[in-house]
Amino acid sequence: MHATSEILAEANAVRGTLANLTTETKNKALAAMADAIEADTEAILAANAEDVAAARGVINPVMIDRLSLDAGRVHGLAEGIRALIPLDDPVGKVLDHIERPNGLVIEKVTAPMGVIAIIYESRPNVTSDAAALCLKAGSACVLRGGKEAHRSAAAIVVALRKGLAVCGLPKGLVNLIDDTSRASADELMHADGLVDCLIPRGGAGLIRACVERATVPCIQTGTGICHVYVDAAADLQKALKIVENAKTSRPSVCNAEEVLLVHSAVAGEFLPKLKALLTENREKAGKPTVELRLDPHAAAIIPGTPAGPSDFDTEFLDYILAVKIVDSPAEAIRHIGAHSTHHSDAIVTEDKETAARFVREVDSAAVYVNCSTRFTDGGEFGLGCEMGISTQKLHARGPMGLRELCTSKYIVTGDGQIR
Amino acid sequence: MHATSEILAEANAVRGTLANLTTETKNKALAAMADAIEADTEAILAANAEDVAAARGVINPVMIDRLSLDAGRVHGLAEGIRALIPLDDPVGKVLDHIERPNGLVIEKVTAPMGVIAIIYESRPNVTSDAAALCLKAGSACVLRGGKEAHRSAAAIVVALRKGLAVCGLPKGLVNLIDDTSRASADELMHADGLVDCLIPRGGAGLIRACVERATVPCIQTGTGICHVYVDAAADLQKALKIVENAKTSRPSVCNAEEVLLVHSAVAGEFLPKLKALLTENREKAGKPTVELRLDPHAAAIIPGTPAGPSDFDTEFLDYILAVKIVDSPAEAIRHIGAHSTHHSDAIVTEDKETAARFVREVDSAAVYVNCSTRFTDGGEFGLGCEMGISTQKLHARGPMGLRELCTSKYIVTGDGQIR
Repeated sequence: MHATSEILAEANAVRGTLANLTTETKNKALAAMADAIEADTEAILAANAEDVAAARGVINPVMIDRLSLDAGRVHGLAEGIRALIPLDDPVGKVLDHIERPNGLVIEKVTAPMGVIAIIYESRPNVTSDAAALCLKAGSACVLRGGKEAHRSAAAIVVALRKGLAVCGLPKGLVNLIDDTSRASADELMHADGLVDCLIPRGGAGLIRACVERATVPCIQTGTGICHVYVDAAADLQKALKIVENAKTSRPSVCNAEEVLLVHSAVAGEFLPKLKALLTENREKAGKPTVELRLDPHAAAIIPGTPAGPSDFDTEFLDYILAVKIVDSPAEAIRHIGAHSTHHSDAIVTEDKETAARFVREVDSAAVYVNCSTRFTDGGEFGLGCEMGISTQKLHARGPMGLRELCTSKYIVTGDGQIR
Repeated sequence: MHATSEILAEANAVRGTLANLTTETKNKALAAMADAIEADTEAILAANAEDVAAARGVINPVMIDRLSLDAGRVHGLAEGIRALIPLDDPVGKVLDHIERPNGLVIEKVTAPMGVIAIIYESRPNVTSDAAALCLKAGSACVLRGGKEAHRSAAAIVVALRKGLAVCGLPKGLVNLIDDTSRASADELMHADGLVDCLIPRGGAGLIRACVERATVPCIQTGTGICHVYVDAAADLQKALKIVENAKTSRPSVCNAEEVLLVHSAVAGEFLPKLKALLTENREKAGKPTVELRLDPHAAAIIPGTPAGPSDFDTEFLDYILAVKIVDSPAEAIRHIGAHSTHHSDAIVTEDKETAARFVREVDSAAVYVNCSTRFTDGGEFGLGCEMGISTQKLHARGPMGLRELCTSKYIVTGDGQIR
């Protein structure tokens, strides 16, 4: 086992290489890394089988499924890396070009972040995805995955480094922390000057720990208490389709709907239809039904569980939907302002002015009009990839693509100017 | 005295107003705030006189000068606010426009940050500058200044709020913390959800405290250990002019040069000329002379103080320059990588390839070719203003103008799309 400090030193030793990586070199390396993953399929599957065997009975079946690889999934890891090759190189973009009266030429250009640390949990694809994203963005990565997936992650990193070696690149571009205890996470959080950006990807506890304790710059990826507001001027057919999709298409993810707000003018017509759609109809179709947790006004219209005090502030990640009746768009906006995690919130309305007001006043990373909150995703946004969804307001907000993994620098060229 | 929590609540109560501030409203408010500052000149000077009287003997004369106002300086505060009026509104800029195959239209637009907290020290102009910058950027500000300037800051905020009132805007747009003890700074650092961005402006101790303790998103503004590297291919006349300017034009600021690196091929010719320029010539002209702290190689060429072990890692902020001889651009780049605070570093060379390599490999907020490091400044960069110089890599790097005081949001418009 290598000490975390040694691994950090190895990552930092490649800074000179990073500054000189061309698009062509990076793309060749990505191709070689993908090929190496496929060539190492057997070793990766063997390591993964050990992880899975050790995890059985320790973590739940959903987590076991997330952890498990087969030949198809290993091919998927390689394809995930290859998908980055055609994407635009985010480094070296001129963001501003300023010519000053004194003759100075000032350019603001995108530049590699340097060393990016990622603390994550047990999905093996994060290892290869994160390494590939960082490389395409011109940075070295320091990966610190969960204990359950460590053998898999180590085998994947061995393959990725073989790909780097094929291209004559130093292995320090992709680094995996051997120590999966809390000590190594703490060391990364305090690696001032050695880690330019720390990205925690995982549960609320991990993210909170990073925000509270990290002294290195940290990007908060977030939990989602996402709202759909069905306005008085909503097309109720669209609203039914959107609410069912936002709630049930994948309830375990952060962009799933947790709270439904319905304007009182349409609640009497809408809620019974919604109740039928989410319970009776789904039951008949053999799909999981949705438990509705109702505020008193909604409970007067349809049967359901009475909403408790915390139900409007909970990320259920389950087939549960809190429902509240509001009397105006302003009340909906106020409720969202007070209870949203500012991830993704939607309005369903045919009234353009109400939509414009909602979009202006709802202060969330993604604000939707007449579509499902489930679209908050780098791929769905056309970014080609993502490193997570930022719910903070600095640097990156919403899906983080390659651009958000870069920094910028000012390059000022003169001919002897002084101030 | 109002409790800090009450003041934070007042700032957060204006979030609805922020979302609807038009460019015209903001500019009218800035004009009214500037007029109110001038109308209140007498009250501001009276408050300032009390601050200055209380500070005499407590802080040094340079600090007393920074703290002191006169009618001309009060006019300067108003003019500083007026200078923001013609600047482009940073809110509502479309950064990306994406149309997806499923018909979704996705726009990434700049949006107000919300509530920006600024912790600063004793210069009264920061109070009006910061408030005006935040307003133009569509945010409310919570100002927490130093104890020495509190009466001045309070009088300035009274005037600024009169300007807001003239325009029918809530006073919660501009807020001053009454408590100037460490407790209020700590409260701001931990005001999760109430402060969207914290900007410490002050000494290294304050900035370090914010980085270590803040749980709210924080922008690190920085200290500057800035380098000038005089290459073998330098035009030595330019180099002399640039080094003198970078070191002596204002040694107390963060973009002043602290370390000179000279290529060994030109050190024999350059250093004696530099020594004459910075010492004998300046003495004759009645200007402060520069103490040179020399590495052994430089000390073999010119007389000077031997450099101690910490001299290449010190922000002198004084007429002191550490000098080191290097044998190649690569050695200069390595030294800068190891010792710079990544604020502003310069090369003097006529060799385009060496300049390009320096620019690529030196990982600093501003990298200069053939000009003085003293240009790292929002005004000099043509941004019209600045809130400080960021030396971190997330969100803002280098001078922070209005754009860096904003966040962005994704606005997604559909017609019933689901995923």
